[in-house]
Amino acid sequence: MFKTIISPSISDMNALRHVNNTVIPHWFESARSPLYTLFNPSHDLTYKKWNLILVHMDFNFIKPVYFGYDVEIRTYITKISKSSLTLSQEVWQNGQLRLNGNCVMLYYDYIKQESNLIPDNIRNKLMNHLISSKELEEKNRLEMKNKKENKKEFVESD
Amino acid sequence: MFKTIISPSISDMNALRHVNNTVIPHWFESARSPLYTLFNPSHDLTYKKWNLILVHMDFNFIKPVYFGYDVEIRTYITKISKSSLTLSQEVWQNGQLRLNGNCVMLYYDYIKQESNLIPDNIRNKLMNHLISSKELEEKNRLEMKNKKENKKEFVESD
Amino acid sequence: MFKTIISPSISDMNALRHVNNTVIPHWFESARSPLYTLFNPSHDLTYKKWNLILVHMDFNFIKPVYFGYDVEIRTYITKISKSSLTLSQEVWQNGQLRLNGNCVMLYYDYIKQESNLIPDNIRNKLMNHLISSKELEEKNRLEMKNKKENKKEFVESD
Amino acid sequence: MFKTIISPSISDMNALRHVNNTVIPHWFESARSPLYTLFNPSHDLTYKKWNLILVHMDFNFIKPVYFGYDVEIRTYITKISKSSLTLSQEVWQNGQLRLNGNCVMLYYDYIKQESNLIPDNIRNKLMNHLISSKELEEKNRLEMKNKKENKKEFVESD
Repeated sequence: MFKTIISPSISDMNALRHVNNTVIPHWFESARSPLYTLFNPSHDLTYKKWNLILVHMDFNFIKPVYFGYDVEIRTYITKISKSSLTLSQEVWQNGQLRLNGNCVMLYYDYIKQESNLIPDNIRNKLMNHLISSKELEEKNRLEMKNKKENKKEFVESD
Repeated sequence: MFKTIISPSISDMNALRHVNNTVIPHWFESARSPLYTLFNPSHDLTYKKWNLILVHMDFNFIKPVYFGYDVEIRTYITKISKSSLTLSQEVWQNGQLRLNGNCVMLYYDYIKQESNLIPDNIRNKLMNHLISSKELEEKNRLEMKNKKENKKEFVESD
Repeated sequence: MFKTIISPSISDMNALRHVNNTVIPHWFESARSPLYTLFNPSHDLTYKKWNLILVHMDFNFIKPVYFGYDVEIRTYITKISKSSLTLSQEVWQNGQLRLNGNCVMLYYDYIKQESNLIPDNIRNKLMNHLISSKELEEKNRLEMKNKKENKKEFVESD
Repeated sequence: MFKTIISPSISDMNALRHVNNTVIPHWFESARSPLYTLFNPSHDLTYKKWNLILVHMDFNFIKPVYFGYDVEIRTYITKISKSSLTLSQEVWQNGQLRLNGNCVMLYYDYIKQESNLIPDNIRNKLMNHLISSKELEEKNRLEMKNKKENKKEFVESD
């Protein structure tokens, strides 16, 4: 699991004083940086070198994210296929899972415009971060079991 | 169907010279504006009045979106439930479906923090834009049948 | 003058229900697209071809920009130097100048990492859009003279 | 001085593989968070409570910001007036000042739509972070004196 701490910025808040949905893809992109380094240690953003392309992303909004409290982004690898990998990412704030989502990335050759097999040396490193969706769900269920959100902190009356 | 034309901006392009994945949620949000007007004719962004909340969104990246050519965002209503609706949104450029996605919104009371039944007068207006996912797929298949992308326009060699 | 019409999106609004300051640089970037085309007709975003780099930008926030009303972005060229040009850009909404700003761009060689003289064929095209800051100020003063903002539209009480 | 560390994200990079100009206002907004807390300890984003409004911002782009290296945002208060304050903010990467800018914020009553005098208890806290523009320039000159950027890290040839 990769952990990233972010302080919501004023500019992340929408008219209903929640972090806006369009902000989350940026946060998840930032939280994928360690994974990009794993695939591209030289950070070389060229067609010849860069080797990942996003083909899918989804987001489930469970509870609002508020201003004034840090959030923790957790990034898990939940599936490794021949030439693609699936990530599960979560936003936690004040001990509560606020939202989660998945994305699928292809190991990709930008010049030939086709996907490639993920090499073994990278695959082995990815395996260290692998967790099944089921295990992840159970882990989160246990973590939230005894936590209650302090409702008073967030009154939406004006 | 709601149609929105957008010219990709330089600031929408990423290091691989495609429109970046984080831009698309903004484009789709903009393209939902006519729907927000349908639900909130007075555009009153307050807890007492505003009545929609996003609970899910997903995106499938089929082909890259490039700089220098307008894109067309198409927004369809593909499902109307008791207190929620599902939209399908697409990005077309140069006659090709570049990416699509769905989102689910709840008809929502921000003060009580609970969903409500969509009123009939709004439901009736929504029905005018309803199309099933299957019909939409078939419609798109036919539209792209005889169109070929001019590959020469987009050479990713440097 | 280049004119661009934009509908503020829900995701452009901040917690005080104004268009957020961080949105404006995006809008101005979009509104500079015709100028980019003038300098780069082939839209070739490569180090060898692309020839403009931003070195300064500033913004003056005069009145808030609200949701529910289109805005007009006006882009003027207010200065053409040997190897740089200065743009003045404005956001108008409901007949009022809401904010303005300037930016300076260099005609630039990304490979040699140095500025170049603006070629005459481009310079001649730029001249068509040239207006002095003073003329622009006077033009705007006259335009707003007989217009009064309908204050009732925007009550910030909740 | 307030210090904020940010890792540039893939989505912050533009087609020329620099951090895009539109990203910097977001970074500076984030880096102003400690100041917002100083003015608004309860983080209450309502018209009745929130008390700051941005009236000006400017940015000078000195050197590009690249992917793969953390940046340090430094936020100074360079002027405190009766009802406004001026901040100077800088982006440093690899020991080099990459860009800087200023912003002016009013101490503001959103209900009455007018500025107010900054109260003494806040003013006293602000004084701790005050530095003149001249001192800041001299401080930066000394810091960069013996540092040379490793040009080899950033070759813009493809």
